[in-house]
Amino acid sequence: MAKTVIVGGVAAGMSTATRLRRLDESAQIVVLEAGSHVSFANCGLPYYVGGVIEERDSLLLQTPQSLAARFGLDVRVNTRALSIDPHARTVLICAPDGSQYTEHYDSLVLAPGARPAVPMVSGAERALTLRDIADVDRLSHAIEAASTAVILGAGFVGLELAENLVRKGLQVTVVELAPQVLGALDAELAVRIHDALTGAGVAVHTGARVDSISATHANIVTADGQALSVPADVVIAAIGVRPDSQLAVHAGVEVNSAGAIVTDGAGRTSVPGIFAAGDVAAKTDAVSGSERSIPLANLANREGRRVADAIAGREPSPRASMGTAIVSVFGVVAAIVGANERILAQSGRSLRVIHSHPLDHAGYYPGATQMALKLIVDADTDQILGAQAVGGAGVDKRIDVIATAMAGGLRASDLADLELAYAPEFGSAKDPVNMLGYIAQNALSGLSPTVQWHELSALEPAAIIDVRSPQEHARGTVDGSVNIPLDELRSRHTELPERGRIVVHCQVGQRGHSATRLLRQLGYDAVNLDGGWLTYRDGLRSTSASRAS
Amino acid sequence: MAKTVIVGGVAAGMSTATRLRRLDESAQIVVLEAGSHVSFANCGLPYYVGGVIEERDSLLLQTPQSLAARFGLDVRVNTRALSIDPHARTVLICAPDGSQYTEHYDSLVLAPGARPAVPMVSGAERALTLRDIADVDRLSHAIEAASTAVILGAGFVGLELAENLVRKGLQVTVVELAPQVLGALDAELAVRIHDALTGAGVAVHTGARVDSISATHANIVTADGQALSVPADVVIAAIGVRPDSQLAVHAGVEVNSAGAIVTDGAGRTSVPGIFAAGDVAAKTDAVSGSERSIPLANLANREGRRVADAIAGREPSPRASMGTAIVSVFGVVAAIVGANERILAQSGRSLRVIHSHPLDHAGYYPGATQMALKLIVDADTDQILGAQAVGGAGVDKRIDVIATAMAGGLRASDLADLELAYAPEFGSAKDPVNMLGYIAQNALSGLSPTVQWHELSALEPAAIIDVRSPQEHARGTVDGSVNIPLDELRSRHTELPERGRIVVHCQVGQRGHSATRLLRQLGYDAVNLDGGWLTYRDGLRSTSASRAS
Repeated sequence: MAKTVIVGGVAAGMSTATRLRRLDESAQIVVLEAGSHVSFANCGLPYYVGGVIEERDSLLLQTPQSLAARFGLDVRVNTRALSIDPHARTVLICAPDGSQYTEHYDSLVLAPGARPAVPMVSGAERALTLRDIADVDRLSHAIEAASTAVILGAGFVGLELAENLVRKGLQVTVVELAPQVLGALDAELAVRIHDALTGAGVAVHTGARVDSISATHANIVTADGQALSVPADVVIAAIGVRPDSQLAVHAGVEVNSAGAIVTDGAGRTSVPGIFAAGDVAAKTDAVSGSERSIPLANLANREGRRVADAIAGREPSPRASMGTAIVSVFGVVAAIVGANERILAQSGRSLRVIHSHPLDHAGYYPGATQMALKLIVDADTDQILGAQAVGGAGVDKRIDVIATAMAGGLRASDLADLELAYAPEFGSAKDPVNMLGYIAQNALSGLSPTVQWHELSALEPAAIIDVRSPQEHARGTVDGSVNIPLDELRSRHTELPERGRIVVHCQVGQRGHSATRLLRQLGYDAVNLDGGWLTYRDGLRSTSASRAS
Repeated sequence: MAKTVIVGGVAAGMSTATRLRRLDESAQIVVLEAGSHVSFANCGLPYYVGGVIEERDSLLLQTPQSLAARFGLDVRVNTRALSIDPHARTVLICAPDGSQYTEHYDSLVLAPGARPAVPMVSGAERALTLRDIADVDRLSHAIEAASTAVILGAGFVGLELAENLVRKGLQVTVVELAPQVLGALDAELAVRIHDALTGAGVAVHTGARVDSISATHANIVTADGQALSVPADVVIAAIGVRPDSQLAVHAGVEVNSAGAIVTDGAGRTSVPGIFAAGDVAAKTDAVSGSERSIPLANLANREGRRVADAIAGREPSPRASMGTAIVSVFGVVAAIVGANERILAQSGRSLRVIHSHPLDHAGYYPGATQMALKLIVDADTDQILGAQAVGGAGVDKRIDVIATAMAGGLRASDLADLELAYAPEFGSAKDPVNMLGYIAQNALSGLSPTVQWHELSALEPAAIIDVRSPQEHARGTVDGSVNIPLDELRSRHTELPERGRIVVHCQVGQRGHSATRLLRQLGYDAVNLDGGWLTYRDGLRSTSASRAS
């Protein structure tokens, strides 16, 4: 009877355990969980803090008792794995009462997850983190008597906490070292999340670092070098996580420079008999092919299941990871799949970037909301490298569709032909994703060249033409642009300089495309400002956002 | 200067015209529209009738004047193409004043759409249809003084109209010849739409035919042969559409048996210089490879654009059509992509059918709603042949993701590994689409064989075991099933007969899968009832639905 010991009883660990049971009724399966709870709803923790999830019990999806009854698992909570002897295939274990014992294994699965990082500053021991049920109890208790909170870190978890602490009536300050919030996104999209935060009364300091934490304040240095002392009854560190790989390192298991356990496609580590899954394990990035950490629950579940398959002799084929992710911040939804432009630009890859601002459903049907949508494409191969969206309804759908297109190897141009379910309540006859495909086709074929918001100043165009209406033009436009509405361009094009690059722009890029086509056919060297005024405006704002709040 | 004449100025025709202009500034483009309006929001018409869309003007996306100004189009409304001389390349045209003239063309695009069919019964001339703005005006006027309406046909348009007439306070009866509503779906899913209709007070007669229409009533014959006279201040025919291909036929253009114009992949008809796009044109079905009519706005737009490309010398590659579609009926959303089981079963193809009942997002986050989800897979190749969903939020997303997976050639098993954006508000760590993939993998590998709801009675199992809780069992279960809760099965399996097929079932199929795995490893010939009690119950109800209302 083969024995599998699993270190960690949440997403990856529990997926391994339950799948393994379904594959092998005879297996002996021991799960060691350092915390008091297994299989809890990790991603729900911030919403329990905010009271959106009212019942603590609803976070607890399984108990050791229910797992024993249903899956014949030997689940031991408050039980830590202290060390591994990979030659003897034993684990030294610390029981809840502090006593120690060893457990033999045939297969050992390391799925302890990742630890929240805490900044190395004076007073940081007061900073709370949010990883498990004990943490959420501590944080819930701490905010009961608190009226101010400082959150260090403006990533996914930091922003979810900001929203939920505001919900509880706290005055919240977010401090982020990077020059923008939500660093997974590119700046010109992230600025909309910045707006959502400040619009809800959150003080946001980007490009700022925490200097020290006192009993009542967080002392920070802002982007312009100013020292600020911010009231902080509660300080929360949400600056990222580190793979919890100490146990593995001491056992001689190979980890990468980020401390993540290196595995083959089936979760096997460098040490025979030892597997790794979830946040502790390095992922192969589907876009770059390089290793990176992607601490996401869905990948943890997927890997746990694959490790079980490998242990049961059902060899899984390797899968790279795209890291699709989503967050809602005060009703503004941001989602991303694949790589962002900032990282890709560093790789030197030739990129084609597309911005659009579609409505989530047909404009003539009530309730349509506009989103910012960005697609990043390999200019040489038309491969989709990544996508981002910020908006309201329908953001999740478009990113999921693009993630699926990427998984299926569809090219950017292929998005034009996707058949997506259309009724006016749900989309448009030309869905936002189709439109990305059309724009990609027009760029690929050279029909409609574009210029990016950040490239405009270096371009030194002979003219910048705003083809929107005079009313739109008056409400704000690109510096130096001249207004010739699209409907007048056919008759007024002779007003344009005959030589030199002409940049046309509209609100979102669509009328600009028609204008670009018109002018190019008339012999002008016209290019369209990608994403129009909205992307240009957001881009400019993003470069000053760290000072704007 | 090449001249293109386009017959039809709505989705396909106007997409052709505007794309062609962007490709060829010098082209002469004439659009002939028999109705009074071009480029109107076809799919919004039922919602204008119901008052959801309040402004009639918001249906009118463009006017001849705006199209002339922006795209240099010569748009002629109230203008009919009477005949074509394909040798002379001329069209005989009837002007709004009744005079006739001919117009030469280099390319002719037939995009007149499809005509609503009307049943051939006495009094049918009173039946209204809904195709264009004139129709919507007539219908809006007719219902002002009406209190009862009979809608013939329970397809997408019929059901949208039913909802909107109820919204206007009418007492609505739907009469459908087929034994179920929404024939695009399979019966066990469509029954939920039937429920939504009856729940909203609509009288639904399936398997029923209209016999005659009087000045005040519709006389129908119900499924059990009963003659009913139903009060009908208004009668609407929504029994489907027929390609409006008479003009084409008289010009010698090849049409198929359904009257749809046959084209190559680029919209070329059998007659040189004549193209067709939109509802008048036959589509190649992506699943069967055969020709069928799919009257959808998104395909019309796609085809119009492709015809423009072909005319401008940019050869498009052929694209088959999947016919992804969606409808909301009193808050219950139904969506479909690809082929349904009913049609596929006739083809003799070996099928693997999967039913599930997932929540649209994590159950521990407030507001989660359950949907019925169905995946149909080629049992030999694991190719996805179709999918259907009925529920609330998130139905559109899952069908769009599966449609994209189909377009990308992903197999059913690949759905397991899709990375979809997860936060508890938007999905689950194992998304409903991932779960379909897991179920497909387990079926493909033979780990967890299933039986369909309609196969159970012929299976003559040695035992049917309900592995849900006693409380669930008591609320309704499969005839003849014995309750052994999953958590007790490991200790009580000796109560089962040692020989013969054992069918296990739970509520939705998930616990049944664990039970099936447990029993099969213990040597029992266990199979899981696919989709559990919910699918079984819906399936049984669907076979009696035509009598149930």
